[in-house]
Amino acid sequence: MSLSFRVEKTVGTARRGRLLTPHAEIETPVFMPVGTVASVKAVSQDILEDLGAQIILGNTYHLYLRPGVAGVRRLGGLHGFMSWNRAILTDSGGFQVFSLSQLRKLNEEGVTFRSHLDGSSHFFSPESAMEAQIGLGADIIMAFDECTEYPADQTRVRESMELTARWAARSQKYFEEHKHEVPWTRVGADAFVRPAEPSSPSGPLEPSPEQEQFQAAPDSGLRPSAGTNASVPAWADQTQSLFGIIQGGMDRALRKESAERTREIGFPGYAIGGLSVGEPRGLTREIVESTLEHLPKDKPRYLMGVGTPEEIVEYASLGVDMMDCVLPTRAARHGLLFTSEGKVSIKQLRFAQDQGPLDPNCDCRVCRRYSRAYLRHLYASNEVLAQVLNTIHNLSFYLDTMRRVRHAISLGEESRFLSDIWSRSKS
Amino acid sequence: MSLSFRVEKTVGTARRGRLLTPHAEIETPVFMPVGTVASVKAVSQDILEDLGAQIILGNTYHLYLRPGVAGVRRLGGLHGFMSWNRAILTDSGGFQVFSLSQLRKLNEEGVTFRSHLDGSSHFFSPESAMEAQIGLGADIIMAFDECTEYPADQTRVRESMELTARWAARSQKYFEEHKHEVPWTRVGADAFVRPAEPSSPSGPLEPSPEQEQFQAAPDSGLRPSAGTNASVPAWADQTQSLFGIIQGGMDRALRKESAERTREIGFPGYAIGGLSVGEPRGLTREIVESTLEHLPKDKPRYLMGVGTPEEIVEYASLGVDMMDCVLPTRAARHGLLFTSEGKVSIKQLRFAQDQGPLDPNCDCRVCRRYSRAYLRHLYASNEVLAQVLNTIHNLSFYLDTMRRVRHAISLGEESRFLSDIWSRSKS
Repeated sequence: MSLSFRVEKTVGTARRGRLLTPHAEIETPVFMPVGTVASVKAVSQDILEDLGAQIILGNTYHLYLRPGVAGVRRLGGLHGFMSWNRAILTDSGGFQVFSLSQLRKLNEEGVTFRSHLDGSSHFFSPESAMEAQIGLGADIIMAFDECTEYPADQTRVRESMELTARWAARSQKYFEEHKHEVPWTRVGADAFVRPAEPSSPSGPLEPSPEQEQFQAAPDSGLRPSAGTNASVPAWADQTQSLFGIIQGGMDRALRKESAERTREIGFPGYAIGGLSVGEPRGLTREIVESTLEHLPKDKPRYLMGVGTPEEIVEYASLGVDMMDCVLPTRAARHGLLFTSEGKVSIKQLRFAQDQGPLDPNCDCRVCRRYSRAYLRHLYASNEVLAQVLNTIHNLSFYLDTMRRVRHAISLGEESRFLSDIWSRSKS
Repeated sequence: MSLSFRVEKTVGTARRGRLLTPHAEIETPVFMPVGTVASVKAVSQDILEDLGAQIILGNTYHLYLRPGVAGVRRLGGLHGFMSWNRAILTDSGGFQVFSLSQLRKLNEEGVTFRSHLDGSSHFFSPESAMEAQIGLGADIIMAFDECTEYPADQTRVRESMELTARWAARSQKYFEEHKHEVPWTRVGADAFVRPAEPSSPSGPLEPSPEQEQFQAAPDSGLRPSAGTNASVPAWADQTQSLFGIIQGGMDRALRKESAERTREIGFPGYAIGGLSVGEPRGLTREIVESTLEHLPKDKPRYLMGVGTPEEIVEYASLGVDMMDCVLPTRAARHGLLFTSEGKVSIKQLRFAQDQGPLDPNCDCRVCRRYSRAYLRHLYASNEVLAQVLNTIHNLSFYLDTMRRVRHAISLGEESRFLSDIWSRSKS
């Protein structure tokens, strides 16, 4: 068993759960910071740990092009390469091939594309995308899919959805045949591995009795027990987990069919792809809500590539367990900061003499120490530290938001915060 | 008394001392990281503290242009503005006016120059440079000097040195008349001040008996004592200290004359300026060595703008107490890293599969956690984290080098490390 998911509490459609992966236990709903090329831009791994990031995302397309999969595999996979001992998820590369690469040419077999870096020609198929993701060695990897563009007519959406379903089956077949080639077992005596932290669950959440029982289970095999040789991690004999992806554009019936076909293949988790591609937000929500109805309740549900702080709260309230988005990190680098009092464009002159913290309700290391005036100065002066501090705050805000969502679900309907979520999500 | 310096141990010409400033106690010889516009580029203040930085440098020219002195003053000076509770030194702006600004025009009164940012016209005189530095509120500030270009003929060097001497007297006069305008006392109830750390001395050095006695002295006034109202820092009624600068080009006699004239005015510390401006390193060393002979032994001696790790060790062995240089931070951003095994250009392909730490003898947070392969990848991918991690390591290496120099001086001549210094400094 390389993945285990348990829903511990539901309130309406929202659910709080616990996802066990080879490298970490994850409290859901969870937000996953994006670490495109093995770095969550501008933030070092120890700070990500401090922020309570439980799982981060890597982009297969980027990593495949640079530094390349073979090199990362030799260095122990992404975990060893970037010295990150918590969980990692990689996307399949499909989305970025379609959005970033030039001159792509698609057929049943796969997609030929040119690198956005140097124009060199490459080919991704379900099989090669699996091979790449196995080499990168994330805990959770994604089936190779075609992300349907928006808008698209029904025929196009159906054809694309059906191609994704066939690719999902091929992805799974290749994965099952090769899943033991994961690079973790190569992290041995010759590898550069230094203990960065005890592999305990992160964050300020109190451990539930279930959690403690879970951890203590002698045969779970997910953590090194006291009697084990510490140099052989318990995950060394585990594999990755492959998630399927639902497509079907903005058509409820095609989404339903995609969900059914993907469930028929059978995966330990399901993602909703092809949203947040330009459609109005009301439509996104409608498709998310209707697609979720067709996904199994006992498996993790991952909504790819969303969203704003309000949106991630809303989707969590609908029953989404996992989300990722470049918004907090990318916006930070452009001086757009998320706070409990709304968005702040820190570049504005009106902050030049503002001695207050960025967000008076935030306890992150940036808000505890620096003033808006200083952050504004760093941004205006194009200092690297602006990118660092802004990103730390935005990630802290996102991760804290999900922490509050999880807490609200635990408290049940009486929680004012949760009813705020409901009212917001219904407006 | 706003500055106190005590030499605690001498070995040959080298000396280990203790410099008390309003905001921090500093172990000398000390290397001061450069924080040009109120940020040591790419490194946050808490990490600087972890690295054991005791004092950092700010550039008056840059800060004057952006964000401006008045704003920094209103926010409590540099300490409050950047949330740095240890010591700060500002240069006078002179060096950068001469090296960075356009269309500068100098006369007895001062220098008119155009901003390198927007071409706007400004005027610096000894008086206005003091005014700016008082507004910035560093613990140690510098007299306004003319940095003589290299090469220059003897007449030019003499005239320049004499101008610097006259400007030193004017700097001191203005400072004495205005030194109580320091912005620290404005850091009151309305200011954004959050305690970042206890104001204790930093670094892994064991406190000497002298130090403990020093700290315990009831009337030193340098630290809040237990009985004091904690909201009124003990330094609130102290002033800055103004250092004089020796010029005189590469002429020993003119350096001697400059030292004598500057001592005649009388300062609590003396800097050697106008070196490392393009002259051969042997000549730098010769001028440093001969100039030091004319400086008082009981006052701190600051060599401005040097150097490589080898050079800072060498100058410390000659009896220099304070140094600053952009080299560790600037080189880091260009992928040039200093290690115990020599310089490493991390961009090189040969590190792409190197699983070892950057410096096996370094205990910094970068070398403890990341491989050369990862650092090489971050640099090659132009990731912001490359600048962050490279800078942390280089600063760690510099600060650690000075820590070892201080330790070697404490141990006296028996220390092998110290004899290494002697042999290197004599070669």
